[in-house]
Amino acid sequence: MTNRLLSEVIFPGFQNSWLEQNHDGAVLEISEARLAFTADSYVVEPRFFPGGDIGSLAVNGTVNDLAMCGARPKFLSCSFILEEGYAMEELTRVVQSMRAAADRAGVSIVTGDTKVVDRGSGDGLFVNTAGIGVIEHRLKISPQSIQPGDAILLSGDLGRHGITILAEREGLEFESSIESDCAPLWDVVDALLEANIEVRCLRDLTRGGLATVLKEVADDSTFQLRVEEEKIPVSDGVRGACEMLGLDPFFVANEGTMIAIVPGDQVAAALAAMRAIPEAANSVQIGQVEEETNQRVILRSILGTDRVLDRLPGEQLPRIC
Amino acid sequence: MTNRLLSEVIFPGFQNSWLEQNHDGAVLEISEARLAFTADSYVVEPRFFPGGDIGSLAVNGTVNDLAMCGARPKFLSCSFILEEGYAMEELTRVVQSMRAAADRAGVSIVTGDTKVVDRGSGDGLFVNTAGIGVIEHRLKISPQSIQPGDAILLSGDLGRHGITILAEREGLEFESSIESDCAPLWDVVDALLEANIEVRCLRDLTRGGLATVLKEVADDSTFQLRVEEEKIPVSDGVRGACEMLGLDPFFVANEGTMIAIVPGDQVAAALAAMRAIPEAANSVQIGQVEEETNQRVILRSILGTDRVLDRLPGEQLPRIC
Repeated sequence: MTNRLLSEVIFPGFQNSWLEQNHDGAVLEISEARLAFTADSYVVEPRFFPGGDIGSLAVNGTVNDLAMCGARPKFLSCSFILEEGYAMEELTRVVQSMRAAADRAGVSIVTGDTKVVDRGSGDGLFVNTAGIGVIEHRLKISPQSIQPGDAILLSGDLGRHGITILAEREGLEFESSIESDCAPLWDVVDALLEANIEVRCLRDLTRGGLATVLKEVADDSTFQLRVEEEKIPVSDGVRGACEMLGLDPFFVANEGTMIAIVPGDQVAAALAAMRAIPEAANSVQIGQVEEETNQRVILRSILGTDRVLDRLPGEQLPRIC
Repeated sequence: MTNRLLSEVIFPGFQNSWLEQNHDGAVLEISEARLAFTADSYVVEPRFFPGGDIGSLAVNGTVNDLAMCGARPKFLSCSFILEEGYAMEELTRVVQSMRAAADRAGVSIVTGDTKVVDRGSGDGLFVNTAGIGVIEHRLKISPQSIQPGDAILLSGDLGRHGITILAEREGLEFESSIESDCAPLWDVVDALLEANIEVRCLRDLTRGGLATVLKEVADDSTFQLRVEEEKIPVSDGVRGACEMLGLDPFFVANEGTMIAIVPGDQVAAALAAMRAIPEAANSVQIGQVEEETNQRVILRSILGTDRVLDRLPGEQLPRIC
C-alpha cells in the first residue's frame, strides 16, 4: 500500500528533481554548502525492545539516512505526537534515550514540537525526526554511480531488528537472545571516506531488508547485482526465528547494518576501514556489480543454484520502525 | 500539559544552546551559511475547513516558523502517518493542497516518509513538516533585541483560524462566514527586510493567540509591552463567535497573522512595506515596548482601564493545528 501511495499519489503530487533522487534523503545546495535533509516518522510497536526503543530508533534511523547520503549528521528535529494519558515517566525514558543516542551519534536535537491527541486517536507515542547533514566530499553517492566490477560490502548480519520486534510482539522466546542492531552508521561511512575509498553507493538495510535494498539499487542503476548466500552472515538465532515465523532473513529489516558499493580494486582497504569501526567489525564482501544491464539481483545459493531476488513480496511488516 | 512536558521533560532532556533560543525554529551556522530549521506535526480536526486544510496548514505553519526566524523558506520535508483505511482520494486532495501551498510560498517539498498504522491507532491523517530556510541578513531577530520605544505592529485581525476550526467542529453557523487566515508570511518579512527595517522581533500568532505570544516575548526580553485594545482589529464575525463560545479573541489562534517589533522611528516605512503585501494589507501599530523591566503585557481597554495579559489560562484548545 505504501508503495502505491508513493508512486501514485505522493511523488506525482510533489514532483521535483530532489524527490526524483529517490534516496533516503535529499541533497541540497545552500550558499555553496552541500547538505542532506531527511525526515521519518517512527511508529514502532512495541516502543521498547531488546537493543533499543522508539527514541534510539528515531535518532539512529534519521542519522543513518543522512549517512547513506554520505553526509555527516549534524542537527535533528524531534516532534512527538502523544495520545492523551501517555505516561510522562515513559516519555522521560524516551527523551533520555534520544539524548543518549544523539550524543553517541554526534548530533544535536535543536528544534521540535509536541502535540497531544485525544485518547483513541493515537497509540501512545509517535516520533518524527528530521535531520540535516553536511556533505564534505565531492563524490556522487548514488546507484547511478555504480560500475561493473564494483564490490558489494555488507557491514554485519541480517535481520536482527525485524526479528526482535516480531518476537516481542508475538511473545516468542528463543534459545539464543536476539537484540536489535539499532545503531548509528556515520562512523562507518566516515571511515570509508577518510580512507579515500571512492564510495559509489550506500544503503542501510531497513524496510524490506537486504533483498529489497539490492533490488532498489539495481533498478536505479542499469546493472545486474550478484550476491552469494554463503558469504551473507545470518545469526543462528535469526535463522531459527525466521524458520519458525515463515520469514526469509533476506527480507527482514535491520536498523544498524548497511551495504557499501565500492570499486573492486579498493575492497581490501574498504573492508579494513569498515572493520575498524565496532558497528561494522564483521564487514564482508558479499558480491559484485556485473556487466549485464538487466537490473536484476541474483542470489547464488549455498547449493550453487541461482535465484532472482525481487522486492519484498506482499505486504510489508507493519510498524517495524 | 504540553507546557509541563516541555519544561520538565523535553527541554531538560535535550538541553543545548539551540533549544535555549526558545524560538519557533533553530538558527544554525553551517559552512558559513546561516540557516533556520524547524519542525511541526499537524493533527488538526477537522482536516478540511473554510480557508484551508491540514495540508496547506502544514506547509504554511512551517513556512511561517522559518519566516519568524527571518529566514527565507526553501525546503520542506513531508511525513504522513496514515490510519489504515484512510481514503486515497482524500490523501490526493491533501497532497495537491500541499503542493499548491508550497508553490505559493516558494518552497520545495524535497524529502519525506509515509507510515501506516492499524485502524484505531491513529486518526485518519497526521502530517509532519520540517523546514530549512536561509538567513540572508545579519540582524538578530529575537525578543532579546527589543528596546524601549520599539513599536509593535500587527499584520491583520485576530482569531480567524481558531474560530473557524471550533465552529466546524461544533457545527456552529454564524451570520457572517468566517474563514481561516491560513497563509504564508515570508513575503511580509521579506518586505520589511527589503525596506531595510531593523526588524527586532517577529512572531506569528499561533497557539495561545496574540496575548500569549506578547507575554512570551515580554518574558524573553526584560521590558513591559503595552497594547491598545481599540487598535487591535477583530472582525465582527470572530467577536460574535467568541461571545457565543465564551472565548477571548486575544487568546484565539491565527495561522497567517503576525506581529513585528521594529524601531519606533521606522513605523511608517515598516507599515508601508507590510501593507504592500496582500496578506498584511491591514497592518497597524497596536502598541509599543516600554522602559519598565517587569516583563508584563498591559492591555489598555477601550474604556481606558489597564489589564495585565498573561499566557493562555487553563488548557489550550486541542487539535487546532
